[in-house]
Amino acid sequence: MSSNTIGNVIRCKAAVAWEAGKPLVIEEVEVAPPQAMEVRLKILFTSLCHTDVYFWEAKGQKPLFPRIFGHEAGGIVESVGEGVTDLKPGDHVLPVFTGECKECRHCKSEESNMCDLLRINTDRGVMLKDGKSRFSINGQPIYHFVGTSTFSEYTVVHVGCVAKINPAAPLDKVCVLSCGISTGLGATLNVAKPTKGSTVAVFGLGAVGLAAAEGARMAGASRIIGVDLNSNRFHEAKKFGVTEFVNPKDHDKPVQEVLVEMTSGGVDRSIECTGNINAMISAFECVHDGWGVAVLVGVPNKDDAFKTHPINVLNEKTLKGTFFGNYKPRSDLPSVVEKYMNKELELEKFITHEVPFSEINKAFELMLKGESLRCIIHMDA
Amino acid sequence: MSSNTIGNVIRCKAAVAWEAGKPLVIEEVEVAPPQAMEVRLKILFTSLCHTDVYFWEAKGQKPLFPRIFGHEAGGIVESVGEGVTDLKPGDHVLPVFTGECKECRHCKSEESNMCDLLRINTDRGVMLKDGKSRFSINGQPIYHFVGTSTFSEYTVVHVGCVAKINPAAPLDKVCVLSCGISTGLGATLNVAKPTKGSTVAVFGLGAVGLAAAEGARMAGASRIIGVDLNSNRFHEAKKFGVTEFVNPKDHDKPVQEVLVEMTSGGVDRSIECTGNINAMISAFECVHDGWGVAVLVGVPNKDDAFKTHPINVLNEKTLKGTFFGNYKPRSDLPSVVEKYMNKELELEKFITHEVPFSEINKAFELMLKGESLRCIIHMDA
Repeated sequence: MSSNTIGNVIRCKAAVAWEAGKPLVIEEVEVAPPQAMEVRLKILFTSLCHTDVYFWEAKGQKPLFPRIFGHEAGGIVESVGEGVTDLKPGDHVLPVFTGECKECRHCKSEESNMCDLLRINTDRGVMLKDGKSRFSINGQPIYHFVGTSTFSEYTVVHVGCVAKINPAAPLDKVCVLSCGISTGLGATLNVAKPTKGSTVAVFGLGAVGLAAAEGARMAGASRIIGVDLNSNRFHEAKKFGVTEFVNPKDHDKPVQEVLVEMTSGGVDRSIECTGNINAMISAFECVHDGWGVAVLVGVPNKDDAFKTHPINVLNEKTLKGTFFGNYKPRSDLPSVVEKYMNKELELEKFITHEVPFSEINKAFELMLKGESLRCIIHMDA
Repeated sequence: MSSNTIGNVIRCKAAVAWEAGKPLVIEEVEVAPPQAMEVRLKILFTSLCHTDVYFWEAKGQKPLFPRIFGHEAGGIVESVGEGVTDLKPGDHVLPVFTGECKECRHCKSEESNMCDLLRINTDRGVMLKDGKSRFSINGQPIYHFVGTSTFSEYTVVHVGCVAKINPAAPLDKVCVLSCGISTGLGATLNVAKPTKGSTVAVFGLGAVGLAAAEGARMAGASRIIGVDLNSNRFHEAKKFGVTEFVNPKDHDKPVQEVLVEMTSGGVDRSIECTGNINAMISAFECVHDGWGVAVLVGVPNKDDAFKTHPINVLNEKTLKGTFFGNYKPRSDLPSVVEKYMNKELELEKFITHEVPFSEINKAFELMLKGESLRCIIHMDA
């Protein structure tokens, strides 16, 4: 990265998805300079999240191709556009799929992180400023993905979607905080808020669920009950503080009844990380009356209906949803990085695989087979 | 009340419900002395709540007659049973239909008021201690109602269901804090917790809903939107701080959509006080994403299902239930009485009628016609 790139188009490698479900192709792309309130980043490490795979498969959603996916990453600011005052070239950053404009009612509210201007938009493949892409190949525009497109050596991101972090933090580790791990961790620490000694159930032991368990471990929960249809997950889950395991398939009765019996009346907190509607209902119905809180993280199908008897609510149970763990990207992610730096939060155990950029399709294969939690893609390798 | 009543049976007047739906009959009853952990109270004022009428009508529930109804009241301790140390004859008290043993997990939790030992039980017509009634007429037992049975000049109550209050507080006013008014008020102040300047919707403008509005007024809400199928209620509701009114019948679209439009995205808090399942769903769906909280107060039918799209939850809306406004009867009611004493809480406007004990059936008629909010029954008149 030399200063003569500033203001100029950068030619670099990017993994382009030309068609839904087809392997990505490493191409030479042109990355335009950042416009007003935009930042151009050099991506050093990126990881793969289910959301990339979901939109790459494009089953059901509007297909938008060719496109550069990727939204969990760590990088360094290469240059900034007009009006950007709180970032400068050389800053270490995490790009985030949802933003924080710091001006709207949501950003000004202490309770919400659902920025009106920069809330995730999976249908938009262009920049907000001019409705155009900053990526092209021989003049053909290549679409962006959730404003980040980190499967490229350089990318352009709205300043509101960039968290500036401690430059001492290893980007090959903290890059996973851009999405899934923060989502699960924040669901527990910011929304469920279990107290020391409490009992927490986590539905779904993928990366997000394990991050929720990690949050419960950090909060000092005494029992962390993992619920998953795959019993093999329990072994790995123990590393994240999970103390007990329930496979709904092993029981004749609804899993919420099993959990209520195991805990003499219900768990103190539950966190649902699968998006399955029945798991959502179970997660709500398994919490204790009087004080139980159920937090929904997983994204449901668009025709699902959450159905429960209202007496469950009246018995002083609480149902809460969360988006990105209720973290405000710019204001809050730096402190999550610090939790890793002071060894409170353990990130290494989420990283099960690493591949060079040239083998990015291997990361997709590992995720589709369910073999990886997080696979770090090294952009310079 | 002379000291020679202590330890002896008291003969006094009580309004006995001999059959479901038939007018109460003022009878001379015998009231046994309090046993261990029980208190005998002289009731000075009682008021009528929908729950009395509901169980008196006995449509659907198990009928339990003859029975002495009544659970909103103010009185004075006549005598105490063995083991009662924190109450003594002469104390001014409010009996409450649900209790606080101070020993169970719920009582020890800061979040719950759903005492394991003394939680409301509408099916039980006897005292916990020995499974027997303290009321009789010529040896025939008369059943209790929710442990209070305040339609009697004297009644026996478990010590855990008695709140000791400031003796300077006028019992003919603060007696309404025994049930409905505290339920609505606490739903707002303890559960919804609107901030100053916020927008609050209240579904159902009966006594409980108006108490919820009163709570919003006390909390400094800038807009309090009343929702009711009876437009006549708006006039009275203005006294309780309601600033706008919506009658769902006046609109072609669901009332939640009307409310979202009126408030540019949704209300900050909603409180549902009807128990109608569709109102419950509307109350949840009308709150703002990012920070909205819906509180359910009304009790639904036993076959109702609360149904909503889970994305409503994921957008950081919260659904909470409450029971008795989350007040712990013994620990918290004295401070609610103080809010009345320092003129923060206005109770007079809830009291629309007063009758002597001999005309108690008139209170039933007024409530059935929907003409009263609260009718105070003077026991000594």
